[in-house]
Amino acid sequence: MDKIAEINERRKRAHARFVALKSEVYRGFLEMERAAFADGALAKKHKELIAAGISVAKDCESCMQWHIEQAVAAGATFEEVFEAIEVAMEMGGGRATVTARFALEVMDSLKLAPAAG
Amino acid sequence: MDKIAEINERRKRAHARFVALKSEVYRGFLEMERAAFADGALAKKHKELIAAGISVAKDCESCMQWHIEQAVAAGATFEEVFEAIEVAMEMGGGRATVTARFALEVMDSLKLAPAAG
Amino acid sequence: MDKIAEINERRKRAHARFVALKSEVYRGFLEMERAAFADGALAKKHKELIAAGISVAKDCESCMQWHIEQAVAAGATFEEVFEAIEVAMEMGGGRATVTARFALEVMDSLKLAPAAG
Amino acid sequence: MDKIAEINERRKRAHARFVALKSEVYRGFLEMERAAFADGALAKKHKELIAAGISVAKDCESCMQWHIEQAVAAGATFEEVFEAIEVAMEMGGGRATVTARFALEVMDSLKLAPAAG
Amino acid sequence: MDKIAEINERRKRAHARFVALKSEVYRGFLEMERAAFADGALAKKHKELIAAGISVAKDCESCMQWHIEQAVAAGATFEEVFEAIEVAMEMGGGRATVTARFALEVMDSLKLAPAAG
Amino acid sequence: MDKIAEINERRKRAHARFVALKSEVYRGFLEMERAAFADGALAKKHKELIAAGISVAKDCESCMQWHIEQAVAAGATFEEVFEAIEVAMEMGGGRATVTARFALEVMDSLKLAPAAG
Repeated sequence: MDKIAEINERRKRAHARFVALKSEVYRGFLEMERAAFADGALAKKHKELIAAGISVAKDCESCMQWHIEQAVAAGATFEEVFEAIEVAMEMGGGRATVTARFALEVMDSLKLAPAAG
Repeated sequence: MDKIAEINERRKRAHARFVALKSEVYRGFLEMERAAFADGALAKKHKELIAAGISVAKDCESCMQWHIEQAVAAGATFEEVFEAIEVAMEMGGGRATVTARFALEVMDSLKLAPAAG
Repeated sequence: MDKIAEINERRKRAHARFVALKSEVYRGFLEMERAAFADGALAKKHKELIAAGISVAKDCESCMQWHIEQAVAAGATFEEVFEAIEVAMEMGGGRATVTARFALEVMDSLKLAPAAG
Repeated sequence: MDKIAEINERRKRAHARFVALKSEVYRGFLEMERAAFADGALAKKHKELIAAGISVAKDCESCMQWHIEQAVAAGATFEEVFEAIEVAMEMGGGRATVTARFALEVMDSLKLAPAAG
Repeated sequence: MDKIAEINERRKRAHARFVALKSEVYRGFLEMERAAFADGALAKKHKELIAAGISVAKDCESCMQWHIEQAVAAGATFEEVFEAIEVAMEMGGGRATVTARFALEVMDSLKLAPAAG
Repeated sequence: MDKIAEINERRKRAHARFVALKSEVYRGFLEMERAAFADGALAKKHKELIAAGISVAKDCESCMQWHIEQAVAAGATFEEVFEAIEVAMEMGGGRATVTARFALEVMDSLKLAPAAG
């Protein structure tokens, strides 16, 4: 899964650079991130599924890869992730079905599959 | 709450027109909508919260008004809706904080308030 | 039709300002506009219908109002404009159905109606 | 033309997956697609040209490749496709000129060339 | 200038609400904002002009109003603000010329005018 | 730096094609471009930094590569480019931090580094 490895590699490198540059803007962003995805009234799993849907809306492959992984780590099943993507497809039409292809590839990379019927 | 009344009025009128015109494209969309928000692996409430977050990402007031109302009708609390909006703010920065103002106004119109501390 | 009158008024005023300011950037844009919508291999009518579809994709009410009017002035029927909007709805999903409401209102303001069945 | 082959391959694979998953959301989308591009008041060729313009507006390479191919299969000439892209460039400025590069590459892959002057 | 007063009013009210709700996501955003617009290698004036251009790109009236006001408070002239808007028009084409109309209205509300020739 | 070389190559090829096709739409765009980035009330360096910020907002790698290079050629330092990117991150949140990764890579390709502390 080369594309996913490249996304992970670029994310790590950029994160290290932003931190090394002591960017206070980036530090504020990290604070937003921490707070947005902490368990709250909504469980982290559901917050990550919201983010997965937004990732499709924003046509962001790196975001899809990250938030789908986080959702799955927090217990989301294939069906749950897929339904989040379907919501994004409803709101985004044909353009979103194109972006959604990558969500399937991320789920494959995680060996996430539908429960046997 | 005039703006919200106007959104509701325009939605109803357009829906009636699309149906009267026998638009098959719109009929396909209604099928997408029905399927996307039916209870499934994810409860309708969580699907509507995903849609609320996407509505902020897409800067769509009518979408916010609709999906927040649907989420609340399906049992979502103020805190749950607000955390969905916060996820959208994390992913969308300052531009999203502007759009998110309307989400607060929708919640006011629904008399939805934080649980007393 | 107050909203449409306001759009027309604001367009005229801004155009006059950009011209009075002798903006060369705006002058280049006017050259793009003239060339893009002149009859060519595609008739002006079909170019304006493409622009109407793009206007929905870009969520631009002023663009919808202008390009639908231009399309109709170049001979487009209600059905032709509506099918252009349907293409945008296919590609843009629920978000586009919201924007498309205004296209119907523009057609009403032009007294454009479906041919009697 | 490796990029175009990859787009085709990913589209086919995702389509098969969405169908295998019996996604009703996707089924609704297919209904939208069928209806939006059928001959109607507008010929399929002109509908696909509208979609080509929207594809540039939405910065979607897969959409460009598909809709330009469909337009050409329905009889569109190089000049007609190019003028649709020019409309998108007028409405989208410098950002759209970047996306439009791929439209030229799709036309090359189809051996579509301007009529000899 | 009613529209501008309304924008200011809604911004203030939402800010007070986000603070009252003790949103840590919003607090992180305020930290981003403070850091992004502080004098640095770039003077605050130039940072606000960058933000004015981005506001047009993001079709955000509230952002335009805020960042143009901040730029002017930091010493920007009519010509400087206008050239920032022209950059956004070059990158965003016809869609951006529509959004840019509001930038002119903001400058009027600030009594900002071109230097007499 | 293969990705950057490919961007440069595709830009050159498309430019030559648009010119060879005698596209008047493209000619108008070139006029916009020339005027937008000429020294004026704002120095070219500051106009290119505005464009760099907009490039992040529009998620456009080719635009980032071009405008960062132009800014640097006009005298911008690493710190100045980085602060322009930070403004875009403030306004665009998590989605923009993903796009901003490429800005860092462009700066690396130009051997642009922070001044030694």
